[in-house]
Amino acid sequence: MTRPRLEFWFDFASTYSYPAAMRIEAAAAKAGVDLVWRPFLLGPLFASQQCLKDSPFNVFPTKGAYMWRDVARLCAGYGLEFAKPSVFPKNSLKAARIAVAAAGQDWMVEFVRAVYLANFVHDHDITEPAVLARCVADAGGDPAAALAATETGEVKQALRAATEEAARKGLFGAPSFVTVDGELFWGNDRLEQALAWAARSADKR
Amino acid sequence: MTRPRLEFWFDFASTYSYPAAMRIEAAAAKAGVDLVWRPFLLGPLFASQQCLKDSPFNVFPTKGAYMWRDVARLCAGYGLEFAKPSVFPKNSLKAARIAVAAAGQDWMVEFVRAVYLANFVHDHDITEPAVLARCVADAGGDPAAALAATETGEVKQALRAATEEAARKGLFGAPSFVTVDGELFWGNDRLEQALAWAARSADKR
Repeated sequence: MTRPRLEFWFDFASTYSYPAAMRIEAAAAKAGVDLVWRPFLLGPLFASQQCLKDSPFNVFPTKGAYMWRDVARLCAGYGLEFAKPSVFPKNSLKAARIAVAAAGQDWMVEFVRAVYLANFVHDHDITEPAVLARCVADAGGDPAAALAATETGEVKQALRAATEEAARKGLFGAPSFVTVDGELFWGNDRLEQALAWAARSADKR
Repeated sequence: MTRPRLEFWFDFASTYSYPAAMRIEAAAAKAGVDLVWRPFLLGPLFASQQCLKDSPFNVFPTKGAYMWRDVARLCAGYGLEFAKPSVFPKNSLKAARIAVAAAGQDWMVEFVRAVYLANFVHDHDITEPAVLARCVADAGGDPAAALAATETGEVKQALRAATEEAARKGLFGAPSFVTVDGELFWGNDRLEQALAWAARSADKR
């Protein structure tokens, strides 16, 4: 039997990706599903698919007002701290490059969670190298090497390729989950359904 | 103790309102919550809030493709039949007027479900008086009286007022749920959370 696997696509600026990132590891372990953490940038998808140059939550304030209340309510239900950031969305390019460069390294997942906490609990500026360096260090990585990697053509290209792959797979929001058999699930509230699908489709192979 | 109550806001053209309408009565009974069925029109809200003259699922095809797959998957999970309608969205004005006029009558809820089945299972044209008349008759109402009511100024105005109330309450999509203490929940996947909130907030009063 193939071991079940699920891709977890996230953007560090995405509010609903925060609770998903904090709870996915325990949920996946419980479901017996391996995770592939896939950082990408949502901005280019909003631009190409919906002609949006800003978050839809800023462009459409009624949706935005609901989203902030909804995320606060959800986090309270999960027992997660949450504070509305003073700037939204924060540019997630540099953080995403670090995460892409860290793929397969043992501090990557802890770094991802550290950045989400920095953004959505401590309201730190995740565009700042010093803030990101601390997230890398807290996760057990090498801050200088991680920051240097963000300026290499290889890492820049890898993030562009990931975002193009997200578009090809039909993504239009974050968080999203993609199963090995190509099934797409969008939203923190689809996490359990995506894990169940991944586990079932692995049973069939 | 005040008996818990939840408003269920729906549009007959809204795909995600279909599974919500089919399962809300059993879920509310289980949670001990009374329901207030609130028909409204989503179109005017899309127009005023997002400058959209069509469903966002048509305007943004990537989101649309996902939505059809997601609704089919959800309905399969709930054990509900579902067939993608040949026309989307179908104009829900006349059906909504009948539902508004039927408020408080014992056939209203059954009529609502009949219209959803007509639209999302049998692909009938819910703009057609003959189709709506059959839905009224199947639900136990008087088709001639129900259709006549849709042409009265009183009923037209009542639906306009409902849609304006929806906007005032912060709605931007359907289905939506509003508690007595003003808490808004959006989406079929928030039904259980909304019912739990309604039950808890009634306990506190």
